[in-house]
Amino acid sequence: LANKLIVLFSDFGLAGPYTGQMKAVLLRDAPGAAVVDLFADAPSAEPQPAAYLLAAYAAWFPPDTVCLCVVDPGVGGARAPLIVRADRRWYVGPDNGLFEQVLRRAAKARVWRITFRPAALSASFHGRDLFAPVAARLARGDKPPGEPHVPTRFPDWPAELGEIVYVDHYGNAITGLRAAALSPDARLGVAGRVLARMRTFSDVPVGAAFCYENSNGLMEVAVNRGRADAVLGLMVGSKLTVVP
Amino acid sequence: LANKLIVLFSDFGLAGPYTGQMKAVLLRDAPGAAVVDLFADAPSAEPQPAAYLLAAYAAWFPPDTVCLCVVDPGVGGARAPLIVRADRRWYVGPDNGLFEQVLRRAAKARVWRITFRPAALSASFHGRDLFAPVAARLARGDKPPGEPHVPTRFPDWPAELGEIVYVDHYGNAITGLRAAALSPDARLGVAGRVLARMRTFSDVPVGAAFCYENSNGLMEVAVNRGRADAVLGLMVGSKLTVVP
Amino acid sequence: LANKLIVLFSDFGLAGPYTGQMKAVLLRDAPGAAVVDLFADAPSAEPQPAAYLLAAYAAWFPPDTVCLCVVDPGVGGARAPLIVRADRRWYVGPDNGLFEQVLRRAAKARVWRITFRPAALSASFHGRDLFAPVAARLARGDKPPGEPHVPTRFPDWPAELGEIVYVDHYGNAITGLRAAALSPDARLGVAGRVLARMRTFSDVPVGAAFCYENSNGLMEVAVNRGRADAVLGLMVGSKLTVVP
Repeated sequence: LANKLIVLFSDFGLAGPYTGQMKAVLLRDAPGAAVVDLFADAPSAEPQPAAYLLAAYAAWFPPDTVCLCVVDPGVGGARAPLIVRADRRWYVGPDNGLFEQVLRRAAKARVWRITFRPAALSASFHGRDLFAPVAARLARGDKPPGEPHVPTRFPDWPAELGEIVYVDHYGNAITGLRAAALSPDARLGVAGRVLARMRTFSDVPVGAAFCYENSNGLMEVAVNRGRADAVLGLMVGSKLTVVP
Repeated sequence: LANKLIVLFSDFGLAGPYTGQMKAVLLRDAPGAAVVDLFADAPSAEPQPAAYLLAAYAAWFPPDTVCLCVVDPGVGGARAPLIVRADRRWYVGPDNGLFEQVLRRAAKARVWRITFRPAALSASFHGRDLFAPVAARLARGDKPPGEPHVPTRFPDWPAELGEIVYVDHYGNAITGLRAAALSPDARLGVAGRVLARMRTFSDVPVGAAFCYENSNGLMEVAVNRGRADAVLGLMVGSKLTVVP
Repeated sequence: LANKLIVLFSDFGLAGPYTGQMKAVLLRDAPGAAVVDLFADAPSAEPQPAAYLLAAYAAWFPPDTVCLCVVDPGVGGARAPLIVRADRRWYVGPDNGLFEQVLRRAAKARVWRITFRPAALSASFHGRDLFAPVAARLARGDKPPGEPHVPTRFPDWPAELGEIVYVDHYGNAITGLRAAALSPDARLGVAGRVLARMRTFSDVPVGAAFCYENSNGLMEVAVNRGRADAVLGLMVGSKLTVVP
């Protein structure tokens, strides 16, 4: 399993025991797998923006990567636990819209409802008790421990989301808009301003706000050597318009 | 050592070089061990609440796990450096009360004072220079590099601590009370309110405060889709009462 | 590669996908290497203080460690991508002063400009697309994929930097001054006060401010069981004087 990649995508936050306990399960059940923290601060309890973030970033990983995805405000309730196979990658997590964009964009996808049951299942931490053991089994090459399932779909969600879905450490604000879906001349309207699209930070003066295609293909709002979130008043959920 | 688990419990914080330098020592001296971050934000410089948190979370890990525990405000002073074997798990850290609850709850326990001395011992970072090399040796299966020792005990500390011992990323407030030690009908008095005990988040309305047994057996105060710490004014050290 | 150490030094912050994506590349190209987070919160976009921090902390790691260093405000612009071999350690990162102190202090050093080009190179994330694949190749034992290069030098920078270069989780403020370069009796002038040099925290009363040689040989300003940054108003860039 030395090359097998398990990627973590959650809203657990950076602190606390949750990610560590999931990793202990993964390393117990899939020894030697490479476990990588992608996001531990995905939009908290908000499957919609998380879905656009996940679809853009998961697509960067190689085939057979297992994405363990826990943005799960309904844990312990009725939502189904899912396994998704989409474009040769595996996804494990709750049936709450988190995989909506992965499913839509996939050339080929299959979905299972998890039937695996652990010896002990807590009411509030299915990431550790249910999703992690399943992710480990998929990393080991086991068949999906589930039965075919039709997931809940969200047909009203747009193909491209004109909202901020993540604000990073530098204050750069990532949108749910794929650069490839926009005209090359398109600009972004945000906070009463229209921002030109540039190639990267060093192409604009210090302090200038702009938008650009980030390293994962999403449009991102930034300020060279400044914080776009502070300058423009942006947070997860802030709206943007595409100005053709 | 592919399956050997070393768990980190500290108040080092998430940032800074301390955890990374400890991991470098662990991976040098116990190559192939699985090193998992459990808490890097245990109660800062407060061995008492940390002791209740540690005892509850360490018990979740399998036999022979090595817990490297550094909440050590007296580093460089007179407190002894310890190795503890309790219920088949190893603990390494300072003799300042951090292991009080682990020792009390153990069916069987032994304690050594570390006699191992590294080539270079800094005055302020025994986690890296002393405790990590010892933890690595235990993970490798070496005998405890120490001599039998009677640790400092804290008989005045209660069996169950009616205080908040940790506030997580969601604002949930973990107490030092074990659910199994309370009557199933018991409620918690906190911040002038009495909170009913429920199964999990999805069993209460959005915005409702409640208490429940968390996934490690501790009573926890929470608000469904809200922050209990903000709503109820809780932080580490806030007091609670058990309402029978 | 089980013992091969790759150390990460960046200003990416703790959150977000950047470190995780770099690790995925490292583990893909150098399977089995031990990847350790040293600093993810090096001085943001400030190569000068970062250079003093890096030189002090990288020197602690064993020979042949690969340090992947990304404090790179000019990413996508004209600055060269470098490989440095200094005192038997490898460094990979931008030519912007980040390696100035490593180069000055090395008994022997060589520098290459990276000529390796990945299949896809983003404009804004050379850490993932360029520096990480090169670091992995060095960890594997490949020859440096570059050509000999004369790096930009910063002769005006002092040998010892009388500034705060890092504030840690406890509020301790690390300076760019090496303890070994100061007289043993030297004190530090900071925020209108003169601080005596002590051995460690437990040697001063609770609440007392002092300075001491930290576990990596840098002078550090601290308050026993308090926050030096808050008590003395310190942040990265705050000035200090040496009082002989």
